[in-house]
Amino acid sequence: MPSDPNDPPRDRVVGEEALIAEFWAPLAAEFPGAFGLEDDCAVIAPEAGHDLIVTTDAVIAGVHFFPGEGANEIAWKALAVNVSDLIAKGATPFAYVMSIALPEAPEHDWIKAFAEGLRLAQNMFHCHLIGGDTDRTPGPLSVSITAFGSVPAGRMVRRSTARPGDVVYVSGTIGDAALGLDLRRHAALSVRCTLGAGARARLDARFCAPLPPIALAPVVREMATAAMDISDGLVKDFGRLCRTSGVGGRIEAQRVPLSEETQAALAMGLTTLDRLITGGEDYEVLAAVRPQRAAEFERLAYAAGTRVTCIGTIAPPADGVVAIDATGAPLAIAHTGWDHFQSPDAS
Amino acid sequence: MPSDPNDPPRDRVVGEEALIAEFWAPLAAEFPGAFGLEDDCAVIAPEAGHDLIVTTDAVIAGVHFFPGEGANEIAWKALAVNVSDLIAKGATPFAYVMSIALPEAPEHDWIKAFAEGLRLAQNMFHCHLIGGDTDRTPGPLSVSITAFGSVPAGRMVRRSTARPGDVVYVSGTIGDAALGLDLRRHAALSVRCTLGAGARARLDARFCAPLPPIALAPVVREMATAAMDISDGLVKDFGRLCRTSGVGGRIEAQRVPLSEETQAALAMGLTTLDRLITGGEDYEVLAAVRPQRAAEFERLAYAAGTRVTCIGTIAPPADGVVAIDATGAPLAIAHTGWDHFQSPDAS
Repeated sequence: MPSDPNDPPRDRVVGEEALIAEFWAPLAAEFPGAFGLEDDCAVIAPEAGHDLIVTTDAVIAGVHFFPGEGANEIAWKALAVNVSDLIAKGATPFAYVMSIALPEAPEHDWIKAFAEGLRLAQNMFHCHLIGGDTDRTPGPLSVSITAFGSVPAGRMVRRSTARPGDVVYVSGTIGDAALGLDLRRHAALSVRCTLGAGARARLDARFCAPLPPIALAPVVREMATAAMDISDGLVKDFGRLCRTSGVGGRIEAQRVPLSEETQAALAMGLTTLDRLITGGEDYEVLAAVRPQRAAEFERLAYAAGTRVTCIGTIAPPADGVVAIDATGAPLAIAHTGWDHFQSPDAS
Repeated sequence: MPSDPNDPPRDRVVGEEALIAEFWAPLAAEFPGAFGLEDDCAVIAPEAGHDLIVTTDAVIAGVHFFPGEGANEIAWKALAVNVSDLIAKGATPFAYVMSIALPEAPEHDWIKAFAEGLRLAQNMFHCHLIGGDTDRTPGPLSVSITAFGSVPAGRMVRRSTARPGDVVYVSGTIGDAALGLDLRRHAALSVRCTLGAGARARLDARFCAPLPPIALAPVVREMATAAMDISDGLVKDFGRLCRTSGVGGRIEAQRVPLSEETQAALAMGLTTLDRLITGGEDYEVLAAVRPQRAAEFERLAYAAGTRVTCIGTIAPPADGVVAIDATGAPLAIAHTGWDHFQSPDAS
């Protein structure tokens, strides 16, 4: 939102209550327990026989998105990264609360675009804003969302329940967001890239406006023994799934599904398979499925319009956790994924 | 957390997962649906016949607390301001999720103190950490909490249901936090202040570590027609309660309960009644009660160990919303409360 002092003064929103009434309240209009955001709390009347599933994730300018990013894409991503967690647990999203910290008095157009991004994401993910907090901050824009989903009682798909023999699946394609980010961040790479404008825009969108596979939630719930979303890189998150489950496992890098765009970039030498499977920000589902249910899992995913690909297996703990290349040799992976607090000299 | 470059290197926590395992997971140990914070989502199994009450509020360094504030007090305040909303709705707090953005790799001692502050607040307010997100930020420390409470179905006390004839109550004393903040912020005022160290510490604590009246929640639920917490100043929040309810009302400034400390400060000319009733950060309950239930409300509040004071009445909408002084004249109030986006020249 930086503005040139020579620019004409822009239309600004004044007053927290006006902001809520004009932009946030319409996003809450269809959820009765949100009371039009005119109360201090929201009411969720739980569905009988169902558990409430809760997750929270924040996005911060300069950390999770570029400071000059479009307001609508920031809003979309803030909600999508939360919905991604719910989907991977087999939960049906239905509501969220948002705490937003704005670095200056917001411009009308910026907030309007942000609210439109939220509206699009709400429609895509079938959920409603039910409460929030709007603050001004001396720091960067940040958006912290807590999202709510529902599952039949006791049916949340855990991270810790994978079993030796399970087949390992991922949804969609892996590495697009990492490549999209690299193309933005490294001018030299971007110059060497001969991908067309459409392909570049698709890669960029995978980073800026991820689309977790909402239709897969009920399939995960019915068919997976364990699951989680892939946000910090496939290799790292697979390691977490195995460790939390107390099992070993292996994934075959050559089987990891890649988009046409990443395949072309690999052919151009713009990226490596290592980078693609460790880069993160995929917001796809990683699921372990009993082998006797694998065919049915694939069929149901296909029927839901979602691509799933078998990339490996869960093994006994003694086998360890490995990613192997086409020759069966373990991949030498320099960085296994994203950690906010890992200092460079400690990796 | 600023450190002198000549200081010896301090013990630092490395790795987001170590941070979670050492400091956050113990705060979640007693809530089964938190899964020791080892999963991506938490499960809330709703109590039969109850609604889930949800609120979210963030605190940011330099906005809601001073940048050098003690970690334990920041943690306490982050949870307390959320619990305050639940209490005023008659809800029983039981859980929260926390999204924390840290400006640098956290020092072990700082995080330890922060976790201890959360532990104390959890114990005081009977609730558990059930999920979270830990990020690094180029901006100031910020802590965004979403808190959960429970009420029997349909029994959340609304802000919008006050009725003409209702008696208006506040809990505790009003203005202590505003005076505590003023003493911190204005050196000249602090120099003129002859309050003892104990009194100053109590005022400071009301700002840094507010203590919303947890025992009052069931009394509010049973007895109030409408209620909200006082966070942006009594006058402003009373105006909101009246406006949302579509009623008028008046509060008598002389009846507003003041602590010994604020009374002494008034006598010293260090503050004004205006300032005390508009300053905010009280985190007390503002409640409207039918006149025939007023005596019982007072009795139950007293039995719960909480002071409540009648400060006015709810009136028909045509009467407007007024705060009056001892002579019955409307108070001329320059600033009616806190608004993050109200620019100084617009007030």
